[in-house]
Amino acid sequence: MTSERAPRIAVGPDRDPRFERAVVAGGGLPCGLEETPDALVWTAGVESFPDFLPVSVRWVQLPSAGVEYWLSQGIVKAHPHVTWTSAAGAYSAAVAEHALMLLLAGVRALPAHLSATSWTPESLAPAIGTLRGATVGIVGAGGVGRALIPMLAALGAHALAVTRTGRPVPGAVETFPVERIDEIWSLADHFVISATATRDVERLVGAGELAAMKPTAWMINVARGDLVDTDALVAALRSGAIAGAGLDVTDPQPLPDGHPLWSLPNAMITPHDSNPPPLRVPAYLEHVTENVTRFASGLVPTAVIDPSAGY
Amino acid sequence: MTSERAPRIAVGPDRDPRFERAVVAGGGLPCGLEETPDALVWTAGVESFPDFLPVSVRWVQLPSAGVEYWLSQGIVKAHPHVTWTSAAGAYSAAVAEHALMLLLAGVRALPAHLSATSWTPESLAPAIGTLRGATVGIVGAGGVGRALIPMLAALGAHALAVTRTGRPVPGAVETFPVERIDEIWSLADHFVISATATRDVERLVGAGELAAMKPTAWMINVARGDLVDTDALVAALRSGAIAGAGLDVTDPQPLPDGHPLWSLPNAMITPHDSNPPPLRVPAYLEHVTENVTRFASGLVPTAVIDPSAGY
Repeated sequence: MTSERAPRIAVGPDRDPRFERAVVAGGGLPCGLEETPDALVWTAGVESFPDFLPVSVRWVQLPSAGVEYWLSQGIVKAHPHVTWTSAAGAYSAAVAEHALMLLLAGVRALPAHLSATSWTPESLAPAIGTLRGATVGIVGAGGVGRALIPMLAALGAHALAVTRTGRPVPGAVETFPVERIDEIWSLADHFVISATATRDVERLVGAGELAAMKPTAWMINVARGDLVDTDALVAALRSGAIAGAGLDVTDPQPLPDGHPLWSLPNAMITPHDSNPPPLRVPAYLEHVTENVTRFASGLVPTAVIDPSAGY
Repeated sequence: MTSERAPRIAVGPDRDPRFERAVVAGGGLPCGLEETPDALVWTAGVESFPDFLPVSVRWVQLPSAGVEYWLSQGIVKAHPHVTWTSAAGAYSAAVAEHALMLLLAGVRALPAHLSATSWTPESLAPAIGTLRGATVGIVGAGGVGRALIPMLAALGAHALAVTRTGRPVPGAVETFPVERIDEIWSLADHFVISATATRDVERLVGAGELAAMKPTAWMINVARGDLVDTDALVAALRSGAIAGAGLDVTDPQPLPDGHPLWSLPNAMITPHDSNPPPLRVPAYLEHVTENVTRFASGLVPTAVIDPSAGY
C-alpha cells in the first residue's frame, strides 16, 4: 500500500460500529458524513439515503446485490462523478451453499428419509445417489454459479456451465453458450439454475426441457421463479420425469397456500431465504473490508455499478 | 511401470465383467481362479469364499471396509503368506458426503422448511445458519473425517480434529488428542462423529458434552450409535440444548418404531445408508483399479489387513 494517508470513510445512515470496524480492517479511517469523507459505506435502503452527498465523496458502497431500485430512483445518475458499487458477489457464497444443500439433500433422498417413521433402509437406499462423479449443469455462471463450482469439485462432481457467451468458466468441465443450452438437459445429471437477475431470459425450463432430463435428475432453482414453468414442473414431479426439485424461488412468488408444490414429496421449498438476514451482515462486512482495502490502495473497488447495463 | 508381465488377477466368486474391466484399467490380466492367478479380487461375502486358494495367489482384495467378520472366521489367518487388503477408505468419500449433507441440511434448517406448507420466511429465516466461517469438530479423523475436511474447506468452514494421538491432521485448523476432547464441545460450532469402528471408545457424547455445546450446534453421527447417549440426546433435542442431530447410526439400532427420535422435528434419521448398495459398487471398482495398479507396479496395495489390530 502506497497511499499517503488512510481514506476517510463515512458509514451511514448511522455509524454502525461493526461497519466502522470493517472500514478500519480495510485500512480506512471512519468519520462522519459531515467530516468531508472520501467515501460512503451505506448500510440501509434507498429511502434514508441523503439527498445531497458531500462533494468530497468519490465512492459510495451500496448494500444490495441487485440495484434496480437504486437505479430507478435516479440516485446513481444524480452523482455521475462518484464511483458506485453494489454488493454483487458478496452474497454469492451464501446462495451457492444453499443450492449445494438442496442438491445434496435431494440426491441423497433426505425428504423421503425425513418422512419415514421406521428403520427401512431397504426401501430408502435405492433412491440414494451421490454427487461423486456426477455432472451438474450450472445455468448462469455468475457469482453464485462460480462460487458453487469449487464446492461441487470438493465433492467429486463435475460442472457444465451455461453462460451468455460460452467463454470458459474456471473450473467447469465445459462451458456452453446460451444458444446451445438445449444440449445440457440430457447431458447433465442434475441442474442448478443460477442465472443472474436480468430480465432478458424467461422460461428456460419448460415441459420439453424437463422431459429431456434424466429421471434421476434433481433441479435446484436459486435464481428467479419465472425461469421455470411451474405447471410443467409440477407435472414432471408427479410423473417421475425427474427425481425432484429444490426451489428457493417460485412462480408465483410467494407460493400461495394450497399450491401443489407444498405437498409434493419430491419438492423442497425454501421461501427465498438462501441468503437470510442473519447471514447478510457478516457477508456485507467482508465485502466492505475488501472494497475499502482496494480503495485505500488506489484500486477500483469491485462490483462497480453500470447504470446502462442495469447492475 | 517396470513389471515384466501384467499380473494375472482372478475376480470371484463369478467373473463380474465390471470388475474384470477395473482389473484391466489397473494394468492386470483377468483370469479364472483355476488359471494360477497372482491375485484374487473378491466381490462377495465370507460364505462363498473358497476353502482353498491356489498357491500362486499372493494377494487377496476383500470388498468390506470393516473385516471383523472375515478375521473371526479365520480365513485371513489360514493364509499367512498372502497379503490381504480390505476396502477401507474406498467408501470414505460416500460417508463424508452423507455427513456433509446432514450437516448442511441441519444448519440451513431444511427439516423445518420441509414441514412448512406456507411461504413464511419470517418464521423460517431466523433459524438458518451457514457453514461459512463455522468451526466443525470432527471426532475421529480416519478416512471419513479426512475426506470431509476438504469438503468443509470448500464451504469456508474450519475443521477441528480429534484423534487418538493428536498428530496434526492435514487441513484441520487444530488437532486435539483424545484426552483433550472435552475442550472441543464448547469450542466448535457443530460436530461430526466419525470415529473408526474399533471397540475401545464408547459413549463419547453424553449429557455433559451436549450441555457444553452451543444451542445452535448440529451434531452428526455417521460412526456408531453407541458413541452417543441416546436418552441424553433426546433430552437435549427436546430442551433445545442443541439445535439438532443427524443420525446415520443409532443406539439401539435398528431404531425401534415409536422411538422419540422418529418424531422429534430436529432429529434427522438415515438408517445406516450413508453408503448404500447403489454407491458401493462404483467405489469398490475405483479401489480395485487403484490396488491392481499398485500391485502391477510392485507396490504394496493400500488397506493391508493387520489381523492383530483387527482391521
